[in-house]
Amino acid sequence: MFEDVKAPTSEAFEAYKARLTAVSRRAAEEGVDALLITPGPDLQYLTGSTMTSFERLTCLIIPAHGMPTMVVPRLEVAALRGCILHSPAVVLAPWVDGDDPYLLIGRSVGRSARVAVSESTQALHLIPLMQHFDPPVRLATDVLREIRMIKDDAEIAALRAAGAAIDRVHARMGEFLQVGRTEADVAADITAAIIAEGHTRAAFVIVGSGPHGADPHHEVSDRVIEPGDIVVIDIGGPVPEGYFSDCTRTYSMGEPPADAAEKIALLEEAQRRAVELIRPGVAAGDVDAAARNYLAEHGLSEYFVHRTGHGIGLSVHEEPYILAGNNQTLRAGMAFSVEPGVYLQGKWGARIEDIVVVTESGCEPMNRQPHGLTVLPIAG
Amino acid sequence: MFEDVKAPTSEAFEAYKARLTAVSRRAAEEGVDALLITPGPDLQYLTGSTMTSFERLTCLIIPAHGMPTMVVPRLEVAALRGCILHSPAVVLAPWVDGDDPYLLIGRSVGRSARVAVSESTQALHLIPLMQHFDPPVRLATDVLREIRMIKDDAEIAALRAAGAAIDRVHARMGEFLQVGRTEADVAADITAAIIAEGHTRAAFVIVGSGPHGADPHHEVSDRVIEPGDIVVIDIGGPVPEGYFSDCTRTYSMGEPPADAAEKIALLEEAQRRAVELIRPGVAAGDVDAAARNYLAEHGLSEYFVHRTGHGIGLSVHEEPYILAGNNQTLRAGMAFSVEPGVYLQGKWGARIEDIVVVTESGCEPMNRQPHGLTVLPIAG
Repeated sequence: MFEDVKAPTSEAFEAYKARLTAVSRRAAEEGVDALLITPGPDLQYLTGSTMTSFERLTCLIIPAHGMPTMVVPRLEVAALRGCILHSPAVVLAPWVDGDDPYLLIGRSVGRSARVAVSESTQALHLIPLMQHFDPPVRLATDVLREIRMIKDDAEIAALRAAGAAIDRVHARMGEFLQVGRTEADVAADITAAIIAEGHTRAAFVIVGSGPHGADPHHEVSDRVIEPGDIVVIDIGGPVPEGYFSDCTRTYSMGEPPADAAEKIALLEEAQRRAVELIRPGVAAGDVDAAARNYLAEHGLSEYFVHRTGHGIGLSVHEEPYILAGNNQTLRAGMAFSVEPGVYLQGKWGARIEDIVVVTESGCEPMNRQPHGLTVLPIAG
Repeated sequence: MFEDVKAPTSEAFEAYKARLTAVSRRAAEEGVDALLITPGPDLQYLTGSTMTSFERLTCLIIPAHGMPTMVVPRLEVAALRGCILHSPAVVLAPWVDGDDPYLLIGRSVGRSARVAVSESTQALHLIPLMQHFDPPVRLATDVLREIRMIKDDAEIAALRAAGAAIDRVHARMGEFLQVGRTEADVAADITAAIIAEGHTRAAFVIVGSGPHGADPHHEVSDRVIEPGDIVVIDIGGPVPEGYFSDCTRTYSMGEPPADAAEKIALLEEAQRRAVELIRPGVAAGDVDAAARNYLAEHGLSEYFVHRTGHGIGLSVHEEPYILAGNNQTLRAGMAFSVEPGVYLQGKWGARIEDIVVVTESGCEPMNRQPHGLTVLPIAG
């Protein structure tokens, strides 16, 4: 009767153990004596734990040599049941109100230790933690980057499930996106569909209609969708495994203006060229250049105002970033977005985005809905 | 056509301006030259902005003297429309990929400045920010605590709306909580009801049935609800204004065992005594003692294993904390939970929680559902 929903199979358990070991080894190579990992994507990657932290410190200490130690409020220990954090692989160090958990960590790790913290650690905890170490505290990014960037089979399966789930929402867009409704109405329906199609929540819902589409970071408003509008829909969220979907398609409310249709066809080709270039050994910056140069050749350079993509996994944005000048070399297992756009201020915008995973010989797209401008008929 | 859903009324605009001014003044009193506020509850309190931040730094600089400056990726400037951050009250400092926004802030504020950061600022940003200042960076908590802790009329109205919304979910508990269903099934229905009754999301849903109720931090599991179970339901989330609800009630599946009914009646009285004591001038620790001592007098001391409450507002947990030894004096406008519990390991648990707001003469409860053990009939 005490089985936990999240109890990992022994297979998952071994995978987490391997990740913890790999990170310890990498810490030693990077000259880090101990990693301090608070709840967030890094902890989820390393242990499967989706716990959140409030004002009471929870922190996994991963030393370069020796066993990991979980510093956790005693009240929350029971919630770790079924997780590798509550197993012989991890030392539990519970604390109670009145203890100083920062001091506890400082003493355990040692004042002269070179420590590195997860990117998501909050100032609330980081500032009191830092007092206990002489060498400046670093970010754990250098230790975790390579390991988290290369997705294993289970992670790729989760990204595939996330891609299929968000594709089902785009496939239903005609139900939600209709002339006469506000962007906010449309977004509310999309939010419900994101959950209904298999996500645990909607992390972002952008409905950029008409001139709003020209702002890549517009979310939603009370603007009413009109006939002839071009509409950018950029949506995503996590599936139960924690991995994110993120997919953008551009729609037209009835027949589009010829100029928009033409430019969006060029954008579609730019996105296709970027995807086509992807394989191990190519530089991230070259993928950006493939889309950017094609748009430039067709006089659209000034309308593409952002980078081509971002890594994705347990975080919506993570490494690698697909942007000009990034010499980082692509490797099999990397997952990222390819999302060029064109934005005509005051008029309309368009963006086409897939998540792809690099394979040995190219890449596998996680999203398969048609890429070009989708014309939605106007009812009545 | 460009109206934003979140465009503040000029009344709200003036309120945010007053908050920014109050915080500047307070910073000067606390010996802080500049506050650095990244997206999160502090930024929402000060400006109404609910923006989130990813890897690109967004940071509001509030100097002790002079105008606030918003450091923001250029792409996100348009999303600030309608917010005080995009008004004559704030200097906009947009940056583009290739700039170093940390250096930009360091130069703007000055290397010798005494700066303080919001509690929610992530290590990802804090560690590179710190390099640019000689005096150690502090937490902004000392500057913001008093101001954020005392809720104004608009904030109290939002807490009242949140309380009424979560009360409506508890009022419908018989629809969801039924013998033969799993905790996870019940939680899924409660999550949908939390949203349907007026929250923007469910922030937490605890369904602790039978022995699971004895773990105050248990969330949900596949355990099936049985006749005679005592079930703790602790639920809440934010309403559109951003303020949180948080309310716990304890249910019995059919007639409860006499021992449980008796202990839970004592818990109800303990919670009532704590609430009754609340008024300006009383110490937070005395409220904790009122509940704790009553339970102790009835031999239940060992079963009450956590503090009595926590402040609430734009954060689920914030100051003041209602715990033993806290000498902090209550003042009108403070909002916090009063939630004593009893936990019998391996058997059952119970908790009764209301949010209250301190008034001039006592306190106003935000939750009004019956407090005692609610017996749900067993169907069939």
